[in-house]
Amino acid sequence: MLPEKPLAWGRTRSCIRDLAEYGWARKAEIGAERVFDFSIGNPSIPAPEGVNRAIAELIAEYDSITLHGYTTAAGLLSLRERIAADYLTRFSAVVDPERIYVTCGAAAALSISLHALLLPGDEVITFTPFFAEYRVFVEGAGGTLVAVPSRVDDLQIDGAALERALTERTKAVIVNSPNNPSGVVLSKESIQTLAEALRRHKAKTGHTVYLISDEPYRELVYDGVEVPCLLNAYDDTLICYSFSKSLSIPGERLGYIVVSSSMADGDDVYYGIMGAGRSLGYVNPPSLFQRVVERCIGQTSDIEQYRQNRDLLCAGLREIGYDFVEPQGAFYVFVRTLEPDAKAFSERAKKHELLLVPSDDFGCPGFVRLAYCVDADMIRRAMPAFRALMEEYR
Amino acid sequence: MLPEKPLAWGRTRSCIRDLAEYGWARKAEIGAERVFDFSIGNPSIPAPEGVNRAIAELIAEYDSITLHGYTTAAGLLSLRERIAADYLTRFSAVVDPERIYVTCGAAAALSISLHALLLPGDEVITFTPFFAEYRVFVEGAGGTLVAVPSRVDDLQIDGAALERALTERTKAVIVNSPNNPSGVVLSKESIQTLAEALRRHKAKTGHTVYLISDEPYRELVYDGVEVPCLLNAYDDTLICYSFSKSLSIPGERLGYIVVSSSMADGDDVYYGIMGAGRSLGYVNPPSLFQRVVERCIGQTSDIEQYRQNRDLLCAGLREIGYDFVEPQGAFYVFVRTLEPDAKAFSERAKKHELLLVPSDDFGCPGFVRLAYCVDADMIRRAMPAFRALMEEYR
Repeated sequence: MLPEKPLAWGRTRSCIRDLAEYGWARKAEIGAERVFDFSIGNPSIPAPEGVNRAIAELIAEYDSITLHGYTTAAGLLSLRERIAADYLTRFSAVVDPERIYVTCGAAAALSISLHALLLPGDEVITFTPFFAEYRVFVEGAGGTLVAVPSRVDDLQIDGAALERALTERTKAVIVNSPNNPSGVVLSKESIQTLAEALRRHKAKTGHTVYLISDEPYRELVYDGVEVPCLLNAYDDTLICYSFSKSLSIPGERLGYIVVSSSMADGDDVYYGIMGAGRSLGYVNPPSLFQRVVERCIGQTSDIEQYRQNRDLLCAGLREIGYDFVEPQGAFYVFVRTLEPDAKAFSERAKKHELLLVPSDDFGCPGFVRLAYCVDADMIRRAMPAFRALMEEYR
Repeated sequence: MLPEKPLAWGRTRSCIRDLAEYGWARKAEIGAERVFDFSIGNPSIPAPEGVNRAIAELIAEYDSITLHGYTTAAGLLSLRERIAADYLTRFSAVVDPERIYVTCGAAAALSISLHALLLPGDEVITFTPFFAEYRVFVEGAGGTLVAVPSRVDDLQIDGAALERALTERTKAVIVNSPNNPSGVVLSKESIQTLAEALRRHKAKTGHTVYLISDEPYRELVYDGVEVPCLLNAYDDTLICYSFSKSLSIPGERLGYIVVSSSMADGDDVYYGIMGAGRSLGYVNPPSLFQRVVERCIGQTSDIEQYRQNRDLLCAGLREIGYDFVEPQGAFYVFVRTLEPDAKAFSERAKKHELLLVPSDDFGCPGFVRLAYCVDADMIRRAMPAFRALMEEYR
């Protein structure tokens, strides 16, 4: 008798992965330039040159035993101090290096945080559309994911829907801004609505609801949009960050958790994170890349390319007549399907060699996700296919 | 209300870490050369030159997007094929690359395997003395650790004690050879005793007991001793391996799980491992180091230094009159204390500036662990202190 959930999570392949693999096969069949693959959210921009330069410097400067050796479980203090300094400079937020826990990326940060917080049966709220892995992380930590619909028109937080979803079992809320799959950045108004609802809930029930802010796309914003720092909006906040997108190093697995200095039981939460990380087998985050990131914080890949892609794709889709919420960040656009069944729409798009991810797993039917971390030329070549697809529905 | 176990695991510091930190403070106080620190099992030998050479080659050869990008969750197929080829050459064991799951080190391999196998309340047997983190990994996955005493004289498996410990709830057995903390290598006789007991248990109860072989020290053996490959001894075997010690890269977190090709429900176990890894937040093992390891498999650090240290330390201790089981591998020697209370003995040793880890957390009171991954000169300088400590008890 094996436990059922890991088996199910291991067996079910995400529809994103399915579509991507279909795409690889199709490209081999008819030629890569004829397939318009918007399926996968892989950074398409190289790491800043500083990354490989830092690697070369480090192997020259350091002795091997130190460079490739164990670090403290929470990550090098010098890196944590650098991260804390960054928060002070950029967000005027006071972060204690002793409340930073460096992780193997944002997925590890989320899983570890949830294992530190959740008792069996605890509920975790998130807003639609949401990154499908949240369900796996929450259930893996013994909780239940509760999906709260966002406002239909702008995908911002619906305060009334949130109030209805809060219960005595609500332990945490996960927000993701800029959002995967929609590219929407939470407005100040949304954040205020959220923070006030959670504070009212605490006043009424005595239960703290922890706010987990999943921010791998924080640096990928356009048009000068500001991503507000939630540490400044709500005391019981944990930030889960990843350098995957900002430094284009998703395979190297480097991120962190920040536990707010204003969290009343922050010491316990931090101890819980240390303990959860330990029991899940995270001994320390990869040592070479801790030092690489320490030298590269503040650098970003050339995200101007993503902005150009977004403008090109959105202008083209708009002209043809597609409907979507204008994305302000990340590298996704979430497009309304031309029939209610997103999977059927995605299948029909395939006939035009368009690979678009149906939105069902994001908890928000009736959309497809387009990842525009692609070659700009592919976007241009895809426009006639988008037009032909639209024609089919007229 | 936060869950208690992560909090406890985060709060309690291991006595090894405590002793090491005492050592750092003491060295600052009286000078590093006057403290004889045998506390921590950190590799003291640099990585083979091939490691940094491979890094330099890879950053020159590869484009950044590929080199630092996501890989499949199970790790690069080319690396898994290389690992499988290694098993065939070295152990005549047929391993399927599709049953290898590359991990962030052996700790991750163990935690993921246990999450894939254990139902709440399942029991996991291990033999004393054992690596103290096993308890945290097993309890973190919802199981209970059952410690079975090894034979007193040679620390090999006691077949009768094992038989008594097997129950209907036994889901797995963890073995660790060469052993941390004793350096003992399991004999062929021990392995046969173990395999036969588990096969008899299955015949009697119908329950499969999975054998998890934790092998981070596999390449650290001396005197031509052979570490038998358990895949050849028992069908329901999982190997959890780490390159931390063989390549001296413990901070980089690279290891793997092999699910035996002979395991009847091996496909399900492998799916469970994929699912557990996913839900615990292990997206993929660090990408650069997957390629580094692929190029460096078969190389080892210069372990001759560890052998020299072992011979020096064991000869010295023997001459003074200490009692221990001759270690054949790893970089530990497990020495009988001169009073029953190992903690009291360790405290008394401290007065001679000797830092020796008491064995209580290893489930085997009455010993201290000495890690000899140290400078050989320190071993020589420590001998008068060992002698003075012995004198106190005469």
